[in-house]
Amino acid sequence: MSTSPAERDAMRRALALAATPGVPLGPNPRVGCVLLDDEGRTVAEGHHRGAGTAHAEADALRLAGEHARGTTAVVTLEPCNHTGRTGPCAGALLAAGVRRVVFAQADPNPVAAGGATTLREAGVEVEQGLLADDAAALNRAWTFAVTHGRPLVTWKLATTIDGRSAAADGTSRWVSSAAARLDTHRLRAMADTMLVGTGTVAVDDPLLTVRDADGVPAPRAQQPLRVVMGERELPAQARVLNDDAETLHLRTRDPRAALTELQQRERRHVFLEGGPTLAAAFLRAGLVDEIVAYVAPVLLGSGLAGVGDLGIGTIAAALRPRVTDVTVLAPLDPTDPHDQPNVRLTLAPGGDH
Amino acid sequence: MSTSPAERDAMRRALALAATPGVPLGPNPRVGCVLLDDEGRTVAEGHHRGAGTAHAEADALRLAGEHARGTTAVVTLEPCNHTGRTGPCAGALLAAGVRRVVFAQADPNPVAAGGATTLREAGVEVEQGLLADDAAALNRAWTFAVTHGRPLVTWKLATTIDGRSAAADGTSRWVSSAAARLDTHRLRAMADTMLVGTGTVAVDDPLLTVRDADGVPAPRAQQPLRVVMGERELPAQARVLNDDAETLHLRTRDPRAALTELQQRERRHVFLEGGPTLAAAFLRAGLVDEIVAYVAPVLLGSGLAGVGDLGIGTIAAALRPRVTDVTVLAPLDPTDPHDQPNVRLTLAPGGDH
Ligand SMILES: NC(=O)c1ccc[n+]([C@@H]2O[C@H](COP(=O)([O-])OP(=O)(O)OC[C@H]3O[C@@H](n4cnc5c(N)ncnc54)[C@H](OP(=O)(O)O)[C@@H]3O)[C@@H](O)[C@H]2O)c1
Ligand SMILES: NC(=O)c1ccc[n+]([C@@H]2O[C@H](COP(=O)([O-])OP(=O)(O)OC[C@H]3O[C@@H](n4cnc5c(N)ncnc54)[C@H](OP(=O)(O)O)[C@@H]3O)[C@@H](O)[C@H]2O)c1
Repeated sequence: MSTSPAERDAMRRALALAATPGVPLGPNPRVGCVLLDDEGRTVAEGHHRGAGTAHAEADALRLAGEHARGTTAVVTLEPCNHTGRTGPCAGALLAAGVRRVVFAQADPNPVAAGGATTLREAGVEVEQGLLADDAAALNRAWTFAVTHGRPLVTWKLATTIDGRSAAADGTSRWVSSAAARLDTHRLRAMADTMLVGTGTVAVDDPLLTVRDADGVPAPRAQQPLRVVMGERELPAQARVLNDDAETLHLRTRDPRAALTELQQRERRHVFLEGGPTLAAAFLRAGLVDEIVAYVAPVLLGSGLAGVGDLGIGTIAAALRPRVTDVTVLAPLDPTDPHDQPNVRLTLAPGGDH
Repeated sequence: MSTSPAERDAMRRALALAATPGVPLGPNPRVGCVLLDDEGRTVAEGHHRGAGTAHAEADALRLAGEHARGTTAVVTLEPCNHTGRTGPCAGALLAAGVRRVVFAQADPNPVAAGGATTLREAGVEVEQGLLADDAAALNRAWTFAVTHGRPLVTWKLATTIDGRSAAADGTSRWVSSAAARLDTHRLRAMADTMLVGTGTVAVDDPLLTVRDADGVPAPRAQQPLRVVMGERELPAQARVLNDDAETLHLRTRDPRAALTELQQRERRHVFLEGGPTLAAAFLRAGLVDEIVAYVAPVLLGSGLAGVGDLGIGTIAAALRPRVTDVTVLAPLDPTDPHDQPNVRLTLAPGGDH
């Protein structure tokens, strides 16, 4: 790979453009593009603004107009080759007379090739891999979903130090601290899909929306899809059916079928909030890709376990995920003795099972 | 309180002397003493070396001989007034002609008065309270036991993130990481008594000794007393009955009676390692003063809960101890993917129940 310092700078800028706040999460990757002239000066910038809008390359080309001719396009993702809602980007770059293309992440799609070959065959200089890891991290869930053919699944678990998610009478508000709950809403907002079983709806009647510290929900367009899985009917009055966000009832118990259905609906990142039965089903199927466990300094001694039976009989068969992060969540109100630090562990399964 | 910089320096030195490594843990507090002349120069130093040996004051006075006359004794604890195994220190200081006494921690004994009054009445200048918190921290368990009339109880809990202490078949080696186990041995060595129920002996057959990373036990004189509680007979072959340390079988199920018996045997700090039944009994009786919870990034889905029934039916009744420390215990072998970080939470109950 041979790229100039100006191109590296432009790639950093393109990554920042891709991550522009306010761009709604959608089925497409976040992409940024910068057009540079021969002296490394910026001719135009562009980024993708969500499904149905122009791709980043088209956005920059439109701005550059005639000035696009002879430029170098620095793009965070390999230009697409297929005609989607907006036409292929490789073709648009060729038509605009772009001379050179530097991209970060290669198209992760295992079947359809990206635009690099098309561009090279048409005589365009192509360099790939510059800041590729940063670009992949920007679209972690999308990259996963395109590579694996199903959405990424993050399972969130909130337990006491004795592993309980609810007391003996089913009450669970609150096991975790206010800071842990706020952190959960932050993570919900990074997913495009919330998932629970019918049991959780029956017992907890959750809203499953993204809300701020005052309980105000985010705009409907920014809310993840709410999905309830299981064969039982949902109560007509269930809060999950309100207008704050869209809701889907998947009348199946098969985790793989559910993910296939969600993939078809272009969902990239499922945030699984339990309960224990559904979480155990996903774990047993090997369909949990990330675990976020909130541990609260609380003791219950009885009540609902955080996860159901995993079919593990002996210690040697235990699931031993890899720890990727441990964070202590400080109390929101340090003057309140009831507001205690909680610990968040982020884990990547797959190490040992 | 009016003390000189030289006296403050001497008190820091006396605290360091008191904490001299290698002094065996015993029923007595750790105490240090420094004798200063009129110009603030050290005349002699002394410290207590364990039950049956000279008190710190006597140790320093013996070294000083005739030079003790007219000095200021800087002591970490109020000089004793009673004739124990070694005679009262207040009297010894008077006999040696010490002119002034500065001590840190007041005698916590709620009935027997310390030596301050005796010394004052004999015309000695007495100042108290200098670095008192440091001195009390040095003898945390002794201070607690003298104040409360029973040993301090630390309950150690080792669980998975789903709150299991053993798998469904009873196996529990190992839930925690090697670093967490080593840390447990460090904490065992700071207590003078290990406590488990007969159930743990029956299932786990533990040694309950302090050992190093290679499994080599500390010398017998430094081992905590091993105590097994419960009405069942211990198997004659139980490893807890080996010669590595002393062992006591308390044929009772009453936590309070057990602690009374241990107090009579001059035990100051009980390290309760379970199992869940015994831990629950102590928690229900309000007889746990500190909780050390090791959380391992492991999932079992079934098996033994870390603690038995606490009689808590609803979330509002949960025990909500105060977090005093959260520490991530790094893997001992960072190249071993099976060796994962564990989290240690230290908690002080009593906040909410
Ligand atoms: N602290 C936390 O993080 C947390 C989070 C969520 C829930 N909870 C607690 O969890 C409790 C509810 O527990 P739960 O286990 O009943 O909830 P759940 O896992 O949400 O729902 C279980 C139900 O999901 C359906 N289901 C869908 N796929 C399934 C599969 N593959 N295998 C088995 N069943 C499947 C079944 O109902 P059908 O008969 O309809 O098919 C099943 O009864 C509540 O007390 C709630 O407080 C705690
Ligand atoms: N991971 C860990 O940190 C850890 C630590 C220890 C044990 N464990 C696990 O714990 C399991 C053993 O569980 P366990 O609950 O049987 O062990 P336990 O609590 O050590 O022993 C329970 C027994 O203690 C006696 N006992 C004494 N005082 C009692 C009281 N106040 N109330 C009730 N019983 C009292 C009873 O036996 P009598 O009939 O003799 O009176 C009772 O059956 C093992 O599987 C072991 O692996 C795990």
